[in-house]
Amino acid sequence: MSIQKPKGTQDLLPGEVEKWQYLESKARDLCARFNYKEIRSPIFESTELFSRGVGETTDIVEKEMYTFLDKGDRSMTLRPEGTAGVVRAYVENKLYGIPDLTKLFYVGPMFRYEQPQAGRYRQFHQFGIEAFGSVDPSIDAEVIALGFTFYKEIGLKDVTVEVNSVGTPAVRTAYREQLQAFFAPVKDQLCKDCQSRYDRNPMRILDCKIDQKHGVGAPDILEFLDEECSTHFAQVQEHLTAMEIPYRINPRLVRGLDYYTHTAFEYKAAGIGAIDTIGGGGRYNGLVEQIGGHGTDQPGVGLGLGLERVLLVLQAQGVEIPKPEPLDVYLIGLGEAAEKEVTKLLHQLRVQGLKAEKDYQGRKMKAQMKSADRFQATFVAILGDYELERGEITLKKMDTGHQITVSLVDLASQAAKTLFQ
Amino acid sequence: MSIQKPKGTQDLLPGEVEKWQYLESKARDLCARFNYKEIRSPIFESTELFSRGVGETTDIVEKEMYTFLDKGDRSMTLRPEGTAGVVRAYVENKLYGIPDLTKLFYVGPMFRYEQPQAGRYRQFHQFGIEAFGSVDPSIDAEVIALGFTFYKEIGLKDVTVEVNSVGTPAVRTAYREQLQAFFAPVKDQLCKDCQSRYDRNPMRILDCKIDQKHGVGAPDILEFLDEECSTHFAQVQEHLTAMEIPYRINPRLVRGLDYYTHTAFEYKAAGIGAIDTIGGGGRYNGLVEQIGGHGTDQPGVGLGLGLERVLLVLQAQGVEIPKPEPLDVYLIGLGEAAEKEVTKLLHQLRVQGLKAEKDYQGRKMKAQMKSADRFQATFVAILGDYELERGEITLKKMDTGHQITVSLVDLASQAAKTLFQ
Repeated sequence: MSIQKPKGTQDLLPGEVEKWQYLESKARDLCARFNYKEIRSPIFESTELFSRGVGETTDIVEKEMYTFLDKGDRSMTLRPEGTAGVVRAYVENKLYGIPDLTKLFYVGPMFRYEQPQAGRYRQFHQFGIEAFGSVDPSIDAEVIALGFTFYKEIGLKDVTVEVNSVGTPAVRTAYREQLQAFFAPVKDQLCKDCQSRYDRNPMRILDCKIDQKHGVGAPDILEFLDEECSTHFAQVQEHLTAMEIPYRINPRLVRGLDYYTHTAFEYKAAGIGAIDTIGGGGRYNGLVEQIGGHGTDQPGVGLGLGLERVLLVLQAQGVEIPKPEPLDVYLIGLGEAAEKEVTKLLHQLRVQGLKAEKDYQGRKMKAQMKSADRFQATFVAILGDYELERGEITLKKMDTGHQITVSLVDLASQAAKTLFQ
Repeated sequence: MSIQKPKGTQDLLPGEVEKWQYLESKARDLCARFNYKEIRSPIFESTELFSRGVGETTDIVEKEMYTFLDKGDRSMTLRPEGTAGVVRAYVENKLYGIPDLTKLFYVGPMFRYEQPQAGRYRQFHQFGIEAFGSVDPSIDAEVIALGFTFYKEIGLKDVTVEVNSVGTPAVRTAYREQLQAFFAPVKDQLCKDCQSRYDRNPMRILDCKIDQKHGVGAPDILEFLDEECSTHFAQVQEHLTAMEIPYRINPRLVRGLDYYTHTAFEYKAAGIGAIDTIGGGGRYNGLVEQIGGHGTDQPGVGLGLGLERVLLVLQAQGVEIPKPEPLDVYLIGLGEAAEKEVTKLLHQLRVQGLKAEKDYQGRKMKAQMKSADRFQATFVAILGDYELERGEITLKKMDTGHQITVSLVDLASQAAKTLFQ
């Protein structure tokens, strides 16, 4: 019996993997322009990092983590999201000692034990950024703008930005009491998850995916913001307007993580049904100290985008992804001596920078020509005994059928590349 | 108390991560020229895959795997190497049905619970390739050549290629008996691991890292090769010679994995002490069927290179890695109105393709100039109230000190890029 891939994971094969390469290279290029540098933190971390950094009462920590004991009996967890590990690395490596703002990005796999469905996998991939060290509203706006620009540059249509302020912990305490008072009469009618959220984190009830009707008429957090929160939120909006980033305020927007303060935001896309959020993030001013302990307090703001969902929307919207460059030349050797010469030529061409291929299955010329077609080779180069004897090779341009004969010496020279234009 | 990264893992931070980006982009470019396409298989797989595919008697499976039960009580293992997952994906996705040779590459993290030491981590990273579907010796040689070319193109010096043939299973059975007879008189003097290898896999004794002296005078596997094996090995060498890949035959070369047949090879580098192997691979003609079951038999050949070890050698040899491109422009706004305009200009420049940055910490001009220096900005653009009023901005080229004044309209236009040359 053959072994299958684990449930909820994917094999990204040639034909599909190029879309991933494209998204990643767009993300990297974008981050270079916005001056975010890459960070790579480990795939697994101490379990404590996530219970402390993501929040004990989140679905992630309660239900979805891949947790195991290593051979030294330490509890480890495959990272379920990207921020906690980056914050841990920021603290452990004392990046807060750098005079400039620390602006970081990451792209990589994350792991959550959830029921797989369209666009949702147990191993999924996120592109995220984190900016540490500034409370300036312009950095909140920049983070929002970077995500929006990413979607725009890869060709997504109808992406909307929703922003909210979730205030400070003090603001939220007051708001939470009012929310509990509001939901108290209908507490028994809430879904099971929301009943448990009622005590621990009633803001999550507004975010319920099962039933939204009980939230109608609930108080808005925006009415509870103090002056500092209101000013910050207003300035974030001014910067967004200056950058011409379209947004709408959604006072019900509550992200699924406990650590956000002030700015919270999400991106929504058309074309993928009800769960239309394709990314989001926010400010997390207490998180660094919560993870790093006394003396490490630094503000932060970040975003995370699920690449599986981005691909789902790209497909739903029929966005074309640029094709990778085709093969430059497919080499065909006819006869034993010519085949050996082809080994040599092939290697020389590749070393010179050409994308080159040959047959490795002893197939007839006709089958090799078909192979060249499948690889969309720009040229086929044919070397028979006659050509070999004369020190020549025939190059055929596949789209026009035009043929030229060149010397093997020229083909092996540094100038060979110019022959394949 | 702050949380630390797990033992044996690394944070790759800006300043170091660029080396990784460089190695990966070189590997990707090389694979495109050699016509290898990327595959991404999951980070964890069924534990059975590795016990079946890597070999029950290997150190990896016996001692070093990160194995855990998922929430569905399935035994999963973080991949300890790259080949087994790629073979599983090849079979499960029926890639053997494709008429052309399947040539794949991967770059990514692997996990082994080993004692950390210089260049050896519990999460480490491999670049590997696998070619399925051909028994042609030219593909063995191509795989060897690709690895050699990778090292050469990244600037490693004094890399040597060692090749061997480990024959077919029938050849090895005969050889194993002779080896056991040879080692029988000194069995008690072998190291503990080798005493256990004596029965299960005596070829590994030749590869002992603790004590090599007992192997002196042991029979060579090359004397046991049948005609098919000898011919294949001779032809691999002919192709290597045609490609001008320098190599030497090492009849003691035994890779640490059970599945190799015919060709086995390693790359060694100077400058990193006794354990000088920086990569290797070989042919594995029975492995696909062993993993995929009846009807999936396809030959294969591949290689794997540890990127941590490559970086260690690059550093030991003092090889310089190209620096990433610097920032194009650092924007400084003086005064509230100018700062808001800077938000807008900054975003416009980034969208137009420029690497641009500003201050987010309310610092004075002098501190901002220092920041521009640290980012090696090519230009600094200064916008004060006077300039803003006139609709202008001053660009200062940092290396020459040369200043020009341009209109804000020009800076915001699509032609802005030409101003920053």
